[in-house]
Amino acid sequence: MAARNISIGIVGGTGYTGVELLRLLAQHPNAELRVITSRTEAGTLVADMFPNLRGRVTLRFTEPSATALAGCDVVFFATPNGVAMGGARALLDAGVRVIDIAADFRIRDVAVWETWYGMKHACPELLAEAVYGLPEVNRERIRGARLIANPGCYPTSVQLGFLPLLEAGIVDLDHLIADAKSGVSGAGRRAEVHTLLAEASDNFRAYGVLGHRHYPEIVQELQQIAGVPLRMVFVPHLVPMIRGIHATLYARLTGPADLQSLFEKRYAGEAFVDVMPAGSHPDTRSVRGANFCRIAVHQPQGGAIAVVLCVIDNLVKGAAGQAVQNMNIMFGLPETAGLGQIALLP
Amino acid sequence: MAARNISIGIVGGTGYTGVELLRLLAQHPNAELRVITSRTEAGTLVADMFPNLRGRVTLRFTEPSATALAGCDVVFFATPNGVAMGGARALLDAGVRVIDIAADFRIRDVAVWETWYGMKHACPELLAEAVYGLPEVNRERIRGARLIANPGCYPTSVQLGFLPLLEAGIVDLDHLIADAKSGVSGAGRRAEVHTLLAEASDNFRAYGVLGHRHYPEIVQELQQIAGVPLRMVFVPHLVPMIRGIHATLYARLTGPADLQSLFEKRYAGEAFVDVMPAGSHPDTRSVRGANFCRIAVHQPQGGAIAVVLCVIDNLVKGAAGQAVQNMNIMFGLPETAGLGQIALLP
Amino acid sequence: MAARNISIGIVGGTGYTGVELLRLLAQHPNAELRVITSRTEAGTLVADMFPNLRGRVTLRFTEPSATALAGCDVVFFATPNGVAMGGARALLDAGVRVIDIAADFRIRDVAVWETWYGMKHACPELLAEAVYGLPEVNRERIRGARLIANPGCYPTSVQLGFLPLLEAGIVDLDHLIADAKSGVSGAGRRAEVHTLLAEASDNFRAYGVLGHRHYPEIVQELQQIAGVPLRMVFVPHLVPMIRGIHATLYARLTGPADLQSLFEKRYAGEAFVDVMPAGSHPDTRSVRGANFCRIAVHQPQGGAIAVVLCVIDNLVKGAAGQAVQNMNIMFGLPETAGLGQIALLP
Amino acid sequence: MAARNISIGIVGGTGYTGVELLRLLAQHPNAELRVITSRTEAGTLVADMFPNLRGRVTLRFTEPSATALAGCDVVFFATPNGVAMGGARALLDAGVRVIDIAADFRIRDVAVWETWYGMKHACPELLAEAVYGLPEVNRERIRGARLIANPGCYPTSVQLGFLPLLEAGIVDLDHLIADAKSGVSGAGRRAEVHTLLAEASDNFRAYGVLGHRHYPEIVQELQQIAGVPLRMVFVPHLVPMIRGIHATLYARLTGPADLQSLFEKRYAGEAFVDVMPAGSHPDTRSVRGANFCRIAVHQPQGGAIAVVLCVIDNLVKGAAGQAVQNMNIMFGLPETAGLGQIALLP
Repeated sequence: MAARNISIGIVGGTGYTGVELLRLLAQHPNAELRVITSRTEAGTLVADMFPNLRGRVTLRFTEPSATALAGCDVVFFATPNGVAMGGARALLDAGVRVIDIAADFRIRDVAVWETWYGMKHACPELLAEAVYGLPEVNRERIRGARLIANPGCYPTSVQLGFLPLLEAGIVDLDHLIADAKSGVSGAGRRAEVHTLLAEASDNFRAYGVLGHRHYPEIVQELQQIAGVPLRMVFVPHLVPMIRGIHATLYARLTGPADLQSLFEKRYAGEAFVDVMPAGSHPDTRSVRGANFCRIAVHQPQGGAIAVVLCVIDNLVKGAAGQAVQNMNIMFGLPETAGLGQIALLP
Repeated sequence: MAARNISIGIVGGTGYTGVELLRLLAQHPNAELRVITSRTEAGTLVADMFPNLRGRVTLRFTEPSATALAGCDVVFFATPNGVAMGGARALLDAGVRVIDIAADFRIRDVAVWETWYGMKHACPELLAEAVYGLPEVNRERIRGARLIANPGCYPTSVQLGFLPLLEAGIVDLDHLIADAKSGVSGAGRRAEVHTLLAEASDNFRAYGVLGHRHYPEIVQELQQIAGVPLRMVFVPHLVPMIRGIHATLYARLTGPADLQSLFEKRYAGEAFVDVMPAGSHPDTRSVRGANFCRIAVHQPQGGAIAVVLCVIDNLVKGAAGQAVQNMNIMFGLPETAGLGQIALLP
Repeated sequence: MAARNISIGIVGGTGYTGVELLRLLAQHPNAELRVITSRTEAGTLVADMFPNLRGRVTLRFTEPSATALAGCDVVFFATPNGVAMGGARALLDAGVRVIDIAADFRIRDVAVWETWYGMKHACPELLAEAVYGLPEVNRERIRGARLIANPGCYPTSVQLGFLPLLEAGIVDLDHLIADAKSGVSGAGRRAEVHTLLAEASDNFRAYGVLGHRHYPEIVQELQQIAGVPLRMVFVPHLVPMIRGIHATLYARLTGPADLQSLFEKRYAGEAFVDVMPAGSHPDTRSVRGANFCRIAVHQPQGGAIAVVLCVIDNLVKGAAGQAVQNMNIMFGLPETAGLGQIALLP
Repeated sequence: MAARNISIGIVGGTGYTGVELLRLLAQHPNAELRVITSRTEAGTLVADMFPNLRGRVTLRFTEPSATALAGCDVVFFATPNGVAMGGARALLDAGVRVIDIAADFRIRDVAVWETWYGMKHACPELLAEAVYGLPEVNRERIRGARLIANPGCYPTSVQLGFLPLLEAGIVDLDHLIADAKSGVSGAGRRAEVHTLLAEASDNFRAYGVLGHRHYPEIVQELQQIAGVPLRMVFVPHLVPMIRGIHATLYARLTGPADLQSLFEKRYAGEAFVDVMPAGSHPDTRSVRGANFCRIAVHQPQGGAIAVVLCVIDNLVKGAAGQAVQNMNIMFGLPETAGLGQIALLP
């Protein structure tokens, strides 16, 4: 534990990604939480908003201050889309590393980003520098990065599930299907009717079939992995549970393959990806609160189609946990530092 | 309301299909519930087991009795698989119509049935006579039937979703995908660890990827509709909710098509199938407690793949409600008699 | 069924009380739904907002119109507090009966009302005329009423539970305790953070311990029943479920009593109150979607304290169902007309 | 961290208390998990039964073996009631400390125990030696104990809530009321119909009003605290959530008191009891997965009655976490060692 402490700033932090980041950092052996900003909650004790942090986080939210943030080693943006792009430049110039947990730096084609996110990008010149923070793909680039675009929750699960198949070049790239299911915390801590318990509980539905912002992100990164254009249908669904994503992925195999072995080999060295034994069905609860991705792979009913079942906690491996994992890599810490939480079961 | 009353017997009735059948029949204008049998609960008031029926159903469970049942116009089997095949012959011989809500008469190939259900079939000679009770496909044959094989819950939703595509002959029959999600009441009222609230709540998982009993039933019936062999991958999932099935169906289109119009025309005359406006996403709760199937059809992200979203209440249109619908057809009643319940929302 | 149809107007109707009222009236044999108003949703099909009503309610929301409403036999206010008091006078003058499902006419002391509801009352002169619509207490007065104050959900359950004890005069009136638990639909269909599924699910908490608007309503009516002042502590809690109230009531007995018999006799003639057998524990789901109150009464651990367990569906017997029950009484229909729904179980 | 490791055996461990104990011990800096026994699961990898432990617990369940257990420093019994009393004597004789998470040693009067638990006690001579493991009351005795009776979940929450009131002698001891609500994991990982998701979800009910095994335990310990006999009514309820207990406690004050100050002072030095600010309502989720008790105290509606709101996670502070806390005290470790988990919110 000789590693020096990393001084940390958080912009935002009143949403679910924020409280989860605080939970993880408060248990991290090398993290020193120095400042957390919120325009709307300035003055409020963080633990008054999130009572699970009582006795563990003593900070108050403060007004956003460039000076305070510039004194940190790293700043996390746990903000709505469109905030990080306004603050990243100044922080980078001050020598601060930046990890954006929102979407501002995930899409390399600025026109595509502006179409899907409905606003003008404030610093397109940083897009080329930003590193897409999926360690299982980009670990080496993350090590040297100043600016991390932390992946979305659906994109993390879909990419980790398709990755071995695409790298091996054994599936039809024209007909990928990602049938994804998410708990409602993925919609954020915003007052909306459709995510009220009385609306979303004891119910199941698809949404955004004709277009979801994670679609271009997933396709961009899968194409990066495959090296060629591909086509995917992405159908997200809302599950009446708090946390968790289950991606059920379908790909036509172009020839015979030992998928179990392929997946096990690909992820053999990964601390946070668990390929389960053949025949398994991962539960989302098996990663609840933990920075894990568990995967099972099947070839049902004839074997022509690979079916990948992939679960993560959308707030951990799909957001705050992966952000801490990226921080660990950037600062030369053990990649698992502060991420030893075991999933809560039941 | 001049129609005479139909005297009704129920075999079983201590499970979820049973209590749902009782709820519907107790509100049916032409139904006279005469006898309900249960070996384990003989003597118990039905309303003591299911307090929602207090004041509405005054019957007691009785020991199974061929005589008592033989005096009914129709007998429903709301039993585990393997019971109806033991009792159907005698009832038919006594002139009683039989509706089996379990699976004993759903598979026409007795060898296939015996493989998937793990027992010897007691009356294979009735398989040819049994009519598969999906009114939207087999209405005319149901009208004259003595013995109905009431469809399974997953099969009902998957068939109603694929039906217009298969009849129109516009999809690749080699790569059908049915990603289906069910509430836990689909597992029945049996004490099992994996469906405890503490296990299944706040969780999502696939199951039976390598083989589910509804798979051969679905394929058999889809092939009947298509008129040729086809291949389908079927992946069921468990949703942390009580009732409801959401089938998300994927099929590659073999040419251009106006799917919205196709579906609307196919189901124009159907009282219990609701094709929603273009762009819709049906909620399972929109059919909770009601004998409805709601369907939306999409062509996302390029349009090469048809995505059908199809919801039913597994205990109503997927079981007891469809059984009552079949009874109505068999006895010349209005098909909607006693099935006017509006879904409970929220 | 020779009764003529009652023409009905609804003001509001975009909330949970509204959709529930529509569900019940659409199945009522004597109801003719003529107009439903909503300033914010004028022009929208009711069934587009509430898809469970597709095929059953064809009305559109319209701008509030005194003329249209004045042509109805009865107008229900399914509005936020403070709306009905602005419209009731004109409707009564036009000969229309008014049933306010909100709280505008529940408190007879205008000063108390204005303190708890934080606004000036618009027509205090109507308070004396308004009849508190709890049929089990005020049936005769409801029969002749022009203006009904439909009881709150907590007040309905707490009153029906304490009623036999207070009428019999056998409990200490200084130390009544009502520990009440409600599903989240009681908070209405309003976008608020604390009732999001991600906040309220897998959680339990008390709220409003220092003051809840239903407290003065309950005390006023219990005192009316007891005929003397009394004191009660009321602690409401939020349950992670959609519908249902469970009131657990505690009262010190001042002498020996046969409580089971007392309750059974008191409610013997009531169609919608079910006193369960001794030793029972009513489930909220046993009344889900039904206009029922189920009650069990106990004397545990020595017998000095009566414990009453009382369940209702907050949206039915606690709101829309009771409103229809009141309408039936006012118009001389069978009290149970249109209220025969059986609770959905499971 | 110079403390030597404690070698640990677990008897049982296939239930919820067991998996929670494993989760906590796997993260404990001084714990060395050596053996876990289960007659039914001998040979099974612990992580195959509980996939959240994959990669963290490599043990297999083994046949119960006195020899293997005798080599441990401490043995936890995470078994059904009646098992620990059969094994404790031999372990104590071998110099092993024993912590029974079940109920075998909680009741000092063997006749009372045998009445409530319906079996003959196997080693009544150990009852006098067993220390009731509620550290906030018995810390000093725990330090020197060989045999700990770990408190039940309801008893922990009810005692911590009433404790300051009883010690201060300011409440009427004849009329204590404990209205307690528990998540379903309190019923254990046993296949039973009434705790199926389809039965217990979207539902709320009381149970065991006429008698619950935790009642004599609570009364015994409250009397120990008060020093005199007292009477309490205890009404447990089942909440549709996985974890958490919320005790709502009512006590008549016998005179004026500053309850907020009283509670804050009583628990000032306690690491695991958090007295919240005046006016608070603790959420059960604020302690989900954490070894905490959060308490708020109110004097509503006149002030004659103290209302205490007290939450714990039934599996942590109500079972496995408290057991680890007791182990820490017994072995001279910091009381908080391995118990730093922050509650999962949302």
